Amino acid sequence: MAKEFINAKMIVDKDFKVSEIDPRIYGSFIEHLGRAVYGGIFEPEHPEADESGFRQDVLELVKELQVPIVRYPGGNMVSAYNWEDGVGPKEDRPTRLELAWRTIENNQVGTNEFAEWANKAGTDVMMAINLGTRGIDAARNLLEYTNHPGGTYYSDLRRSHGYEQPHNFKTWCLGNEMDGPWQVGGKTAEEYGRLAYETAKAMKLVDPSIELVSCGSSSSDMPTFPQWEATTLDHTYEFADYVSLHQYYTNYEDDTPNFLARSMEMDHFIKTVISTCDYIKAKKRSKKTINLSFDEWNVWFHSTADDNKMEPWQIAPPQLEDVYTFEDAVLVGSLLHTLLKHSDRVKMACMAQLVNVIAPIMTDNGGKVWKQTIFYPYYYTSVYGRGIALDPVVESPKYDSKDFTDVPYLDTSVVYNEEKDELVVFATNRHMENTLKVDCDIRSFEGFRVIEHVVLENDDPKAVNTAEQTNVAPHNKGESHTDGGTLHGILPKMSWNMIRLRK
Amino acid sequence: MAKEFINAKMIVDKDFKVSEIDPRIYGSFIEHLGRAVYGGIFEPEHPEADESGFRQDVLELVKELQVPIVRYPGGNMVSAYNWEDGVGPKEDRPTRLELAWRTIENNQVGTNEFAEWANKAGTDVMMAINLGTRGIDAARNLLEYTNHPGGTYYSDLRRSHGYEQPHNFKTWCLGNEMDGPWQVGGKTAEEYGRLAYETAKAMKLVDPSIELVSCGSSSSDMPTFPQWEATTLDHTYEFADYVSLHQYYTNYEDDTPNFLARSMEMDHFIKTVISTCDYIKAKKRSKKTINLSFDEWNVWFHSTADDNKMEPWQIAPPQLEDVYTFEDAVLVGSLLHTLLKHSDRVKMACMAQLVNVIAPIMTDNGGKVWKQTIFYPYYYTSVYGRGIALDPVVESPKYDSKDFTDVPYLDTSVVYNEEKDELVVFATNRHMENTLKVDCDIRSFEGFRVIEHVVLENDDPKAVNTAEQTNVAPHNKGESHTDGGTLHGILPKMSWNMIRLRK
Amino acid sequence: MAKEFINAKMIVDKDFKVSEIDPRIYGSFIEHLGRAVYGGIFEPEHPEADESGFRQDVLELVKELQVPIVRYPGGNMVSAYNWEDGVGPKEDRPTRLELAWRTIENNQVGTNEFAEWANKAGTDVMMAINLGTRGIDAARNLLEYTNHPGGTYYSDLRRSHGYEQPHNFKTWCLGNEMDGPWQVGGKTAEEYGRLAYETAKAMKLVDPSIELVSCGSSSSDMPTFPQWEATTLDHTYEFADYVSLHQYYTNYEDDTPNFLARSMEMDHFIKTVISTCDYIKAKKRSKKTINLSFDEWNVWFHSTADDNKMEPWQIAPPQLEDVYTFEDAVLVGSLLHTLLKHSDRVKMACMAQLVNVIAPIMTDNGGKVWKQTIFYPYYYTSVYGRGIALDPVVESPKYDSKDFTDVPYLDTSVVYNEEKDELVVFATNRHMENTLKVDCDIRSFEGFRVIEHVVLENDDPKAVNTAEQTNVAPHNKGESHTDGGTLHGILPKMSWNMIRLRK
Repeated sequence: MAKEFINAKMIVDKDFKVSEIDPRIYGSFIEHLGRAVYGGIFEPEHPEADESGFRQDVLELVKELQVPIVRYPGGNMVSAYNWEDGVGPKEDRPTRLELAWRTIENNQVGTNEFAEWANKAGTDVMMAINLGTRGIDAARNLLEYTNHPGGTYYSDLRRSHGYEQPHNFKTWCLGNEMDGPWQVGGKTAEEYGRLAYETAKAMKLVDPSIELVSCGSSSSDMPTFPQWEATTLDHTYEFADYVSLHQYYTNYEDDTPNFLARSMEMDHFIKTVISTCDYIKAKKRSKKTINLSFDEWNVWFHSTADDNKMEPWQIAPPQLEDVYTFEDAVLVGSLLHTLLKHSDRVKMACMAQLVNVIAPIMTDNGGKVWKQTIFYPYYYTSVYGRGIALDPVVESPKYDSKDFTDVPYLDTSVVYNEEKDELVVFATNRHMENTLKVDCDIRSFEGFRVIEHVVLENDDPKAVNTAEQTNVAPHNKGESHTDGGTLHGILPKMSWNMIRLRK
Repeated sequence: MAKEFINAKMIVDKDFKVSEIDPRIYGSFIEHLGRAVYGGIFEPEHPEADESGFRQDVLELVKELQVPIVRYPGGNMVSAYNWEDGVGPKEDRPTRLELAWRTIENNQVGTNEFAEWANKAGTDVMMAINLGTRGIDAARNLLEYTNHPGGTYYSDLRRSHGYEQPHNFKTWCLGNEMDGPWQVGGKTAEEYGRLAYETAKAMKLVDPSIELVSCGSSSSDMPTFPQWEATTLDHTYEFADYVSLHQYYTNYEDDTPNFLARSMEMDHFIKTVISTCDYIKAKKRSKKTINLSFDEWNVWFHSTADDNKMEPWQIAPPQLEDVYTFEDAVLVGSLLHTLLKHSDRVKMACMAQLVNVIAPIMTDNGGKVWKQTIFYPYYYTSVYGRGIALDPVVESPKYDSKDFTDVPYLDTSVVYNEEKDELVVFATNRHMENTLKVDCDIRSFEGFRVIEHVVLENDDPKAVNTAEQTNVAPHNKGESHTDGGTLHGILPKMSWNMIRLRK
Repeated sequence: MAKEFINAKMIVDKDFKVSEIDPRIYGSFIEHLGRAVYGGIFEPEHPEADESGFRQDVLELVKELQVPIVRYPGGNMVSAYNWEDGVGPKEDRPTRLELAWRTIENNQVGTNEFAEWANKAGTDVMMAINLGTRGIDAARNLLEYTNHPGGTYYSDLRRSHGYEQPHNFKTWCLGNEMDGPWQVGGKTAEEYGRLAYETAKAMKLVDPSIELVSCGSSSSDMPTFPQWEATTLDHTYEFADYVSLHQYYTNYEDDTPNFLARSMEMDHFIKTVISTCDYIKAKKRSKKTINLSFDEWNVWFHSTADDNKMEPWQIAPPQLEDVYTFEDAVLVGSLLHTLLKHSDRVKMACMAQLVNVIAPIMTDNGGKVWKQTIFYPYYYTSVYGRGIALDPVVESPKYDSKDFTDVPYLDTSVVYNEEKDELVVFATNRHMENTLKVDCDIRSFEGFRVIEHVVLENDDPKAVNTAEQTNVAPHNKGESHTDGGTLHGILPKMSWNMIRLRK
C-alpha cells in the first residue's frame, strides 16, 4: 500500500540571495505566425476591437499577466521579412508569401501598430532584425526608423506615417535561430558571427543606448550546441549584451514523471550556456559579462501532427495551437522555478508565445477569449515573483525517470519582495500519488504567516480548458501554515503551488 | 594499298537496357547572347515575324527538332542579370550594359516573352537564377512571379503584366558556371555551396514541386574539377535534383581523327561526375540519387578568334557564330551516342545553343533561316531516339590518336521504341577512309527489317552549309539490311548513320 | 658648450635615378567629414562662393598647390555611403545618419558636384566605392554612371542630371580601410580579398581603362599588418594596379627629436609593403608589378581629444581640425622626402586631407581662408618636385631617439627637372640646435648655381598659423651657394629647405 505522504525540508534565508529579479524574465512573444497577430491581438471585425483593431478582451488578459516585454515580429518569420512591408499606408502594403510558416502575410500589422499595441498592453518590445535574407543596411535603416527622433530620411518617414515620437525600442535580437537548418538564410556559426558583429557595430553607431541579443542555439539538442555559442560569441562579444536560448518541452511518449522532470533539462542548458559565455569572456580577457535571454520556452508538441497536414498559403491559419493539459501547466511552473533559480544570469525570458500560438491565451475568431492551463503558473509567478530571488536549501526525496536520475519531488523557487515585505514560495510536487509535506525553516522571516496558499491541482493530468469550459483553474484553499519559524507546506499530489507570507 | 572495308560486331538485346530515355536529353539553350534572341528567335521587323515578334521560320525549325526543354536566359549572362528589367511594359524596361558578353541589352525580351515563345515552340523552360550578383531574395521573388497563381505581390505583378496564369517553370538552374573565373560574381566551391543551399531552401518553400540543378564544373578541364562537385554537392545535396556538366569540343589543331574521338572525353567526364555524386551520396548516408544535366555541350571554336576582336557595347552583335563543318556534325552524332549510353543518369542535356550562337539553326537578320551541319544528327536522334536506350555489346577495331588510345572506329547507341515497336541503331564510322561493316546480332528482335537507313556523309570534312547552299545533308540510301537475326550494317567512311528497323 | 655647426656630405649624380616621379604623389583628399566639404570647398552662402557654391578663395589655394588628384568621397564615410543619395535634384536627396563620423549628411554635394569642383581645381578624382555595406552591383552601377558615355540606364541617368559628358574617373579605390574594426561593414582579409576581386572584375568589364587600388592596412600598427596585404593581394592581384597605405604621425609625448624621426616609420612601412607585393608576385608567377598608393598620410593627433567629446548628429561640425605647428611642417617635409625616395614604387599619395580636416588649408565659415604650417613644404615639393627623383649618396651625423636609432640629421630628396634643366634639393635639418653644413658634390651638373634657397624655420617648434596671424612662413634668404662642382648647403637648425639650381 502506498504511503500517503512524503516529506521534504527547506531552509529559506533572506541573506542567501540569487539575485535581484529582472522583471523581463516574465516576457512573452508575438510572432507573425498562425493566429497570434491576426485573430489574436488584432481582429478589427471583433465586437471587442478598439479603434485600432486590437481586441480589448485579449489586451485585458495580457495586462492581467503583467507581461513586461514582448518579442516581435519573429521568430522564424523575421528571417525573410522586409520591415518596410509593414509600415506606411495599409492599402499600399504588399501581400507576401511568408516562407517560414508558408502562409499569406498581408502586412496589416507592422512595426508601428505593434508598438501601439505594446503601449496599450503596458509592455516593452523586444525587436528582431532579419539576418536571414538581409544584413547591415536593413537593420540600420529600421533602427533609424524606430529610434531616431527626426530630421533624417527614415526617422522622417516614420513621422510621415503618423508616429511623431520615436518608439525607442531598447532591446534587439540579432536575427532568430540562425543555427537552424529550417531557417531561411540560415548561417554557419562563422557566417553568423561575422554578420551579427558587423550589423551590431552599425546599429550601436546609430543608437548606442540599445541592448543586443546574440543568437544562441535553437535548442540544446542541436548538433552544433554549444560550439555555436562559443564561435558566435567570439565574434559578437564586444557588442552583444545577451545570448539567446530557445527550448520547447514535449511529452510525445506520454510519460508524465519523465515529462515533469524536463525542467532539469532547462537547468542544465542554462548552466552550459553560462559556462560557454564565461569561457569566451576569459578567452577575450574581457571585463564584460554576457547575460542570458531565454527568449523562447514552453511546452510544444500537441499541434505538431495537425500542423504538418496544414494547407499552405492561408491567411492566419490555426497553426501551433497546442491545447494545454494540466500536466503541461505543472511543468510550466517548474520551468519558471528554473528561470528564477538562474535569475543572476537569466535577465530576460519569453514564454512562447502569448496568444493562440502555443500560448496561455486562446481566442475564437469573432468569439471568446479564454485562459489555457499554463496561464495560471505564468500569471502568479509574473505578478508575485518580483523582487529578490532567494537561494533555498532543499532536501527532497527523489525519483528516477526514463531520461533523468535523482529528480527531486519538490521543485521550488523563493522570492522576497522587499517593497511589500512579502515572502513568496513557489513549489511543485512532482509526485503523482502522494502529498508532499515540506518543513521550511524561515528563521530570518520572523513573524511571517501564510496569507494565501494557491494550489493548481487536478485529478486528470490531461484535463484542458476550452472556450466553453474551464476544467483547470487554481484555488486558494491550500493548507500550508506557519508554526513559529517553520512554514509547514502541504503540497497535494502533482500540484503547483504559491504560498505567500507576510508579517 | 588501303583495305576498303573494316569489320565490327554487335549484339543488341531487348532485355539489356540502359534506361528509359528522358526526352529532356534533347534539350537546347537560348541565352541573351549575340543574335540568339534578337535576330534569332525574335525579330519583329522580319517578314516572318508573328504578332509577338517571333520569327515563324525559326519556330518551324525548332518544332522540327522536337526540342523538349530550352535553358534560359543564361549562361554567363544570368550572373549579372536583374530579372525585373525584363518584365512589365517594354517602354519602361532599362537598357543595360551586359557584362558577360559586353553588349547592350535593351530587355525587349524577358521572362514572359520567352515563356510565350516556348509555348509556341512546344517546349519547356529550364530557368536560371542569378547567383552572381544576387541571392535568395531575387530568386524567391522571381519564382513567386513565375509560379505562384496569384494573390501576392509578385504573382499579382505578373498578372498585371498580362500573364494571368503562372508559367509553372519546373526546372531551375542554381546559377551558371559559378566556378568560372570569368563569371561575374564567381564563387569558391564553399561560397557557392552555401549560397546555393540557402537559395534552394527558400525556393522549395515557395514551390516544392520544382526541380533544381546544382552548378557543376564549367568543364572537365577546370583545375577545381571534380573537387568543385564534391564540395558543392556536400552543401546542396538535400535540395538539388541534378548537377550540371558543361563542355565544348574543339579542333584547333585540325586533327580530325583526334577530334572525332572527343566523345570519349564526354564519356569520361560523365563517369567522373556520377562517381562524385555517389561518393557524396554515401558520405551523407542519403537514399537520394543526384542525376546529371549536361546542360551545355557542343563543338565551339570556329568563332573564337573573331569574337576576341569584337567591339564592345553593340546590340545583338554576331557573337559565337560558329559555322559548322561536316566533321563537326559527325562528332555531334557521337556526343549524342554518349548521352544515350548514360541515359540512366543523364536526364537532361542542352545542345548549346539553338539559334545563331554556336547553333544548329542560323538566320540572316531580315533574311533566311537555314540548317547547319550539326542540325541533322541532333534532329534524327531527338525525333527517333525516344524510348528505351539499350546496352549493345560492341566489338570494333580501334585506333590511337594524339590524345586518345583505343578509340573504336564504331561508335553507336541503340534505342528501342516500345510504342512504335521500332529498333533504332545510331552509328558513327570514325574511319576516314574505309567503310565499316557491322554484323549486328538482333536475335531478340525477330522479324525486324530495315525500313530506313539515313546516312550523313561527305567527301570534304570541312564542308559547311550557308544561307545560299546546303552542302551537307543526309540521304536515306544507306545499304544496311537484315538477314535472319542479323543486321548487316554498312557504314560509309567517316559517316553518321541512323538505321531504323521494324517488323 | 654646444657646437654651432655639424657637417654632412652628399653626392648627386644625374645618372643615379630613382624614377620618373608620378605627379600623383602630390595628391590630396576630400572626405565627407567635418568641414572638408561643407564650409570647406563648398559654402554657397560665402561671399567668395561661385555660382555652384564653391569657395573661390579655397579653390585658389588648391590651385596654388597644383594638386594633381583628390581622393573622394571617403575614407571611412564611404563604407556606408549610397552614391545614389548624392546625385539628381538636390531637393530630392535624402538626409542620412553618417555612421563613420556620426554626423548628419544632407547630400548637397555628391559625385557630380565634386567632379565639377575637381575640374575647376584642375585636379583628377580618385573615386572610392563602398565595400562596407555594398558590393558588385552598386560599384558597377556607379562606374556606368560616371564613365559610360550614354545609351544605358545609369549613363542616361547621369545625362538627365545635367552631365552630358562622362566624368571618366580613371582611378578607383576598392573600399577604404576594410581591415579596421571601426569600419562599417569591415572585412577579414579573406572576405575583403574575395569581394574586392569579384567587384574589380565586374568594374573592369564595365570600363577596362580604369586603374584600381586594393585596400592595404589602415596603418603599419594594425595587428593584421602585413598578413592583410599578403592575403588580400593574393586575391586581387589580377585586377589591382595599386595597394593603398595609410599612416598618421603623432607627437602625443611631446618629444620633438623622436617625432621628427617618424619619416623613418614611413620608409620602413613602404619597404615592407613593396616586399609583400613582390612576394605575392613571385607566388603567382606574375609579370605584373603592383605599385603603391600612399593615399592617406599626415600628422594627426592635435584634435583627437576634442573630437572624442563632440556631440553626434551635427551637420559639418569642426571635426579633426588639427592646428599644425612648425615642427609638424618639418616632419611633413621629411615625409615628402620619403615618398620621393620611393617614387619608383609609390605612384600615388594623398596628404589627408585638403581643407579643414587635418589639412593644409583652413577656413572660417563665412570668413577667411588661410595656410597652415604644413602648407609650405607641401606646396614647394608639389610645385618644384616634378621630373626625375635622383638617388643621392648621403653621409650625415646621426642621433638616437626614443623609438629610433641612427636617425640622420640630414634628410633629403633630390629632383632633376629635365624640361626646365633645373636641379632641386629638398633638405631637412633635424638638429634642434645646430646649423647643418652640407657639402654636396654635383659634378654632373656642371655650371649649375643656386637660384633660390627657400627656408622654413622658426624658433618656436609649437608656432602655428591662424586666421589672424601667420607665424610660420618660409623665406628665400637661404645662404646655400655653389663653388665649382660643389653645392654648399647651409641648413639652419630644425629647418626645412628647398635649394633650386640652374645653369
